[in-house]
Amino acid sequence: MVDHFLDEILHPRSIAVVGASVSGPGWRFLLPLLRRGFQGKLYPVNPKYQEIGGLKSYASLKEIPDTVDYIISVVPAPQVPDLIRDAATKGTRAVHLFTARFSETGRPQAARLEQEILELARQLGVRIIGPNCMGVYYPAWGISFEEEFPKEPGNVAFISQSGNLAGETVMAAALRGIRFSKVISYGNAIDLNECDYLEYLAQDPETAIILMYVEGVKGGRRFVSTLRQVASVKPVIILKGGRGEAGARATSSHTASLAGSMEIWEAALEQANAIEVDSVEELIDMAVTFRFLPPLKGKRVGVTGGAGGASVLAADQCEMAGLEVIPLPQGFREQLKNRGVSVWDWLSNPADLSIREDDRLTVKGIIELMSQDPHFDLLIVMLHVHRHGDQPDMTLDDFLKQHQLDGFETVSTKPLLAVVPERSFGIEGWDNVEWKLSCELRSRLVSNGIPFYPTIYRAALAASRMADYYIRKDGR
Amino acid sequence: MVDHFLDEILHPRSIAVVGASVSGPGWRFLLPLLRRGFQGKLYPVNPKYQEIGGLKSYASLKEIPDTVDYIISVVPAPQVPDLIRDAATKGTRAVHLFTARFSETGRPQAARLEQEILELARQLGVRIIGPNCMGVYYPAWGISFEEEFPKEPGNVAFISQSGNLAGETVMAAALRGIRFSKVISYGNAIDLNECDYLEYLAQDPETAIILMYVEGVKGGRRFVSTLRQVASVKPVIILKGGRGEAGARATSSHTASLAGSMEIWEAALEQANAIEVDSVEELIDMAVTFRFLPPLKGKRVGVTGGAGGASVLAADQCEMAGLEVIPLPQGFREQLKNRGVSVWDWLSNPADLSIREDDRLTVKGIIELMSQDPHFDLLIVMLHVHRHGDQPDMTLDDFLKQHQLDGFETVSTKPLLAVVPERSFGIEGWDNVEWKLSCELRSRLVSNGIPFYPTIYRAALAASRMADYYIRKDGR
Repeated sequence: MVDHFLDEILHPRSIAVVGASVSGPGWRFLLPLLRRGFQGKLYPVNPKYQEIGGLKSYASLKEIPDTVDYIISVVPAPQVPDLIRDAATKGTRAVHLFTARFSETGRPQAARLEQEILELARQLGVRIIGPNCMGVYYPAWGISFEEEFPKEPGNVAFISQSGNLAGETVMAAALRGIRFSKVISYGNAIDLNECDYLEYLAQDPETAIILMYVEGVKGGRRFVSTLRQVASVKPVIILKGGRGEAGARATSSHTASLAGSMEIWEAALEQANAIEVDSVEELIDMAVTFRFLPPLKGKRVGVTGGAGGASVLAADQCEMAGLEVIPLPQGFREQLKNRGVSVWDWLSNPADLSIREDDRLTVKGIIELMSQDPHFDLLIVMLHVHRHGDQPDMTLDDFLKQHQLDGFETVSTKPLLAVVPERSFGIEGWDNVEWKLSCELRSRLVSNGIPFYPTIYRAALAASRMADYYIRKDGR
Repeated sequence: MVDHFLDEILHPRSIAVVGASVSGPGWRFLLPLLRRGFQGKLYPVNPKYQEIGGLKSYASLKEIPDTVDYIISVVPAPQVPDLIRDAATKGTRAVHLFTARFSETGRPQAARLEQEILELARQLGVRIIGPNCMGVYYPAWGISFEEEFPKEPGNVAFISQSGNLAGETVMAAALRGIRFSKVISYGNAIDLNECDYLEYLAQDPETAIILMYVEGVKGGRRFVSTLRQVASVKPVIILKGGRGEAGARATSSHTASLAGSMEIWEAALEQANAIEVDSVEELIDMAVTFRFLPPLKGKRVGVTGGAGGASVLAADQCEMAGLEVIPLPQGFREQLKNRGVSVWDWLSNPADLSIREDDRLTVKGIIELMSQDPHFDLLIVMLHVHRHGDQPDMTLDDFLKQHQLDGFETVSTKPLLAVVPERSFGIEGWDNVEWKLSCELRSRLVSNGIPFYPTIYRAALAASRMADYYIRKDGR
């Protein structure tokens, strides 16, 4: 067991869903607990029902003939003080308040009620997750706030001030091969806050990588020192909401957060060697990069798979992202020459194989050669499935063979990143073969442990940020 | 007719494909001319065949019993001087040299041959498109270098130094509702160059918007003055390849271009009020924006459709992109209050409707209200189809109704941009309902003339760049 009070809270042996129902949020929170193998006791609480989802429904918390470790509250805000009082009588460690409409409304009365709840909880020794949040997704313990989340656990944790964003991130990251240890949506954070969760995850053996979405922190000084400590143990990747004026206004009406000064924020992150990103997409890119690649401590990249202008732009975008697109090393050229590759003197990095005249060199062969050359720290291969619309029966293996890529998945001994573009198909394209092959290719990459990215810029930026993290870490 | 020599070149009444064949590039260039309604005479030239694609094949250009306006050359480089000589005897105005392996190889002999060809062509009065390029896609005249390109014409022109990039751009832009007037892939540009094409397109009544992909320009001074003149007439959006060191090396081995100094380049573009972009994706975003929106001269944006953190981040990303996310105007709030909207005081911009308690306000209603408010210059609506995986039979109309969006397409009198995310599905997701609905939604948007973008940042950046263009233009 981990020596942190959150470890007990996150391993409840009994859960009550107060405000459970046969539809709406009261069902939405109960359903995953019913279906996802939660091993503890489960108590729906709602006086309107005798039974919900095949379980006896209790009229109140007090009627439950046992202790209740953890409570999910779906009742309206005015009922929460009584809920906290009842929870205290049941030995409850923590209450997750999905319940909202507190300080985030900007209304004084709602803010007063929130404060009252906090004081009551402190007084009675009940900890609070939220309010105004989706709570916990902990697949290994059978807890989820969305029925559709993956059931298998992984080693990435996500602390998110927004529940909706947590949901979108889990689903989008799942497509990229990411599975989660724990995801905590924590909303207004009146009691337990980002520092508590960070401290816990730093110790959590199930977590190797920590993602955060933060709108505002509760205590700046504690946050800075906590972040520094945690980021020295595990990579922490942070997306900040409310960076501009309008965003700061929006954080206030979303989670009642003070967005704070961006200068101080960025200085704190840099000092802590935390990795800041600008969007959910980049947050997931970093998760994928840390999940699938070994620590990267250099930035010299070898690029292949592109043709013509795409290859030129690949060079630009790698450099813009902070990587070094080195010229082909002399020894590399000599190897090409010795193999009888006619374009040995003309080929460059990025290696655009559309210029070759014969098949003495394949894309797979280039990856292999670059992987053997000590001048490269990492490799990026561009895999664009296009112009196959007239071959509806083409399989992925056909495609890979045709592009001399068959077996490329296992050929690199260096960190290898793949680029597989996303598309904006209309309905006329939704079932076309290029899209299907791209989907198959992504699944193949994930199962081979190769991270993929929709653009080369995003691949390069993720690799560059990872290298920065390890270079800074080693320098300390 | 347009008073520019390129107008005649681009309206050939006869075309010879020299090096035509029954497969490979010699077939690839002939096929679209056969199938896409080219109205002129078509002459395959190859002594190895009697007939190609149902047409008589000529042993040489000279055997063709008529003038030949335009030639597509697919023969190897050493045969090109003779080809030019023969062309001159046939009254040919221009030769498109798909033929490559000239100066881009970096080999002195190949560069000498290229120079010899140029001198010969000048001497004999034959103009050259290329070499090392895909040539012309002019759907209204039945000319294309890819069989799969859309047959319908549009009002966007694209001058691209890379043929591959031109192909990718045409296909990706087509998904976003863009059709083209003329696309010219011009490669090494030894004779006709970017300035000739620009001058022509400025006059071309079929072209309203000009896209460019440039690796290097042939004469800096002429380019700057041409660009200034052309960009004052029509929006010119430019993607520069070879902006970094490695990219500059890559331009040299791709089109033998000198990438040039980025400082001078950027100053020239700013002076000309041309719009610079960083990627093919952004190039297409700008095409879509100019194609579908009226001139935008203000940057005050109203945003809706997002929930929670996505809404907060939408505000940040709009500001990062240069838009002004103004607070909800007082009159706007009063209207909400008068309608009995309970969250009238709490709602902000972005308008996150996930906080509302009742249905007095719909997303469609917010778009309508914002559209009527003079404080907004443009609107962005986020349309994320997700969490419908368990409703495989859901239709787009069901979805729009469920999200209170039915009829939103026609409700705005202000420029409206939509955000429809792209996805990285694996094979398990390739035919799922969320993807299908997203595809249907995109088609619906295009048919209603509403531009869509995969992220809010890209939507906001495109709108902001368009406003900058018109604001600068008006200031001159």
